[in-house]
Amino acid sequence: MSVLYEIPVELHSSRYRVMLGSELSTSIQSSELFQAASQIILVTNSTLEVLYSPFIELLFKEVTQAVVRVTLADGEHYKTWASLDKIHSAMLAAKCDRNCLVLAFGGGVVGDIAGFAAATYMRGVKFVQIPTTLLAQVDSSVGGKTAINHPLGKNMIGAFHQPSAVYADMALLQTLPKRELSAGIAEVIKHGLLADRALFDWLHLNMSALLAFNPTALLHVVKRSVEIKAKIVGEDETETGVRALLNLGHTFGHALEAVLGYGSWLHGEAVGCGLVLAGKLSQRLGMIHPTQVQKIEEVVASAHLPVRVPAEAPTQALLEAMLHDKKNQQGQLRFVVLEALGKATVQTVPLALAKEVIDKSR
Amino acid sequence: MSVLYEIPVELHSSRYRVMLGSELSTSIQSSELFQAASQIILVTNSTLEVLYSPFIELLFKEVTQAVVRVTLADGEHYKTWASLDKIHSAMLAAKCDRNCLVLAFGGGVVGDIAGFAAATYMRGVKFVQIPTTLLAQVDSSVGGKTAINHPLGKNMIGAFHQPSAVYADMALLQTLPKRELSAGIAEVIKHGLLADRALFDWLHLNMSALLAFNPTALLHVVKRSVEIKAKIVGEDETETGVRALLNLGHTFGHALEAVLGYGSWLHGEAVGCGLVLAGKLSQRLGMIHPTQVQKIEEVVASAHLPVRVPAEAPTQALLEAMLHDKKNQQGQLRFVVLEALGKATVQTVPLALAKEVIDKSR
Repeated sequence: MSVLYEIPVELHSSRYRVMLGSELSTSIQSSELFQAASQIILVTNSTLEVLYSPFIELLFKEVTQAVVRVTLADGEHYKTWASLDKIHSAMLAAKCDRNCLVLAFGGGVVGDIAGFAAATYMRGVKFVQIPTTLLAQVDSSVGGKTAINHPLGKNMIGAFHQPSAVYADMALLQTLPKRELSAGIAEVIKHGLLADRALFDWLHLNMSALLAFNPTALLHVVKRSVEIKAKIVGEDETETGVRALLNLGHTFGHALEAVLGYGSWLHGEAVGCGLVLAGKLSQRLGMIHPTQVQKIEEVVASAHLPVRVPAEAPTQALLEAMLHDKKNQQGQLRFVVLEALGKATVQTVPLALAKEVIDKSR
Repeated sequence: MSVLYEIPVELHSSRYRVMLGSELSTSIQSSELFQAASQIILVTNSTLEVLYSPFIELLFKEVTQAVVRVTLADGEHYKTWASLDKIHSAMLAAKCDRNCLVLAFGGGVVGDIAGFAAATYMRGVKFVQIPTTLLAQVDSSVGGKTAINHPLGKNMIGAFHQPSAVYADMALLQTLPKRELSAGIAEVIKHGLLADRALFDWLHLNMSALLAFNPTALLHVVKRSVEIKAKIVGEDETETGVRALLNLGHTFGHALEAVLGYGSWLHGEAVGCGLVLAGKLSQRLGMIHPTQVQKIEEVVASAHLPVRVPAEAPTQALLEAMLHDKKNQQGQLRFVVLEALGKATVQTVPLALAKEVIDKSR
């Protein structure tokens, strides 16, 4: 099989393409980027290394360069400096030079760490994303955000470093746990809500096909998501303006993750619930109608995502977490809210309103 | 006193100015950058904190924002991830947001670590360089190279992150140890050799004034050095082309530092000797005349810098170190060589020639 769609991402600092298709090992290997690399560093985790060993084997079948393989432990818990250093140490031990190529083969955690390793190795080398989860395909692999966690905050240490290419391979999604599929769908719902009413309506009608891993359905949502994200990132590479819209549902979502303890809810689950809360906040501000909030809640619930704030997350703790979010500046609470289904904007909101919305969502 | 010269640095990613003058505390404090910052993080080392406490006190005299002070241990030995993490941890503990401003107050080590901390905090915040050594004023503070050392290599982990402003204060140089003054002069000689014959000739005539810390002499060499470096960096921000010329003397220099053990020779001392070796290599290639090499050696020696390869650095070890330099790609030895005094170019050189030049410089 080969690449079915190529979506360009046009930025000030660089331009690259997101390749969509199925069983892309051979396409990746024959790419110019791969051919031109002096060394290739494969970064993945211990689970994926086993699960996708045939894919990986095929990837390096006819490779003539030195290949450095770095396998990280599986999980957000390992998105640390120690994992970053493991990659850098392996690259230095193998004497990788500035023309090497880092391949991030995995979900958001692998992509973020490997991307940050590439951003900071000899002040920046090339990297390619091969996202293996729906969440990474529709969101984290595009846009150049890389990071590791710090004991005092998630994703606090990182860089903007754009990939040289992204390969979104539908075949890799077939083994995804159902819970992770749903978590990825949360970001697709987000893209529909903030920029594409048609995508949102499509989700309303076709959620069951998506939940059944229908390849055509998956391809559709990945394609539309990447197109939407590429357009927004192209307008605002380093998140000083319009890119903030991509945080729809994330102020509530990040707070839920932080208060429940990372790993309790998946990021996408927290975002799903956050989208419902952002909808309710928009309604409370008089921007959208209760029936629209109802529809958001239906779509989120149909993806098997949470729509209620759990008792384990006290309101006061959520509000405090939101005040510490790195998107907030100087103590103001800024939310992405909806002007309509398919249209978002950023607004400063009084703490009391956020409190009211949380309290009414239990 | 106030700013005497403003030298613009014009890059694709940003533009900023290098301010030259004396006793600039008040100018810095009243700058727009300072006024606009949500928090200010001062990064310095334990020696400078004591030595320049009046300067620092004046700097924050009428500041209304929160000031976070991070004091690192003094020395290249501390240019590590642990120091970087100390800065990040202090910033996170103080809840610094994306509008904060990092001040790097120190020499190259402080500037490199603080710059890298700013590059990677929340994917990049602003920083200002206040270089306190001649080396940092004429070289490392301009151009946006930031880095820390890795156990497997110096400056291997870092980023390109341009400062928002640089303040080169001549008053800060008056307390510089003589050995560090000489080390800084090595980079000035380099700038003359690679781009400005007049500067090189000026050094030939005025070395004693410079070594006596004459403020007018210091101002002249800092101004010309910054102008030369700004022009080159403006043409090649991320070192893919002409910026390589700034490595004149550095392939030999880095090898000397590595083989002698970091801390044995200062970076500038190794560069001084490296300039003589680069001159001899250029002569061996038939590009310059022996009398020109003679003049290079005279100027370097007059700055109290080494001009001979010491017995402690065996030729074979130096050659191996050069092959591992991150500027070299795929095992080729590339050197910056001189076409004339004031004009440099990059050339691939057989290992045997480099060996011959080293052997003849003992």
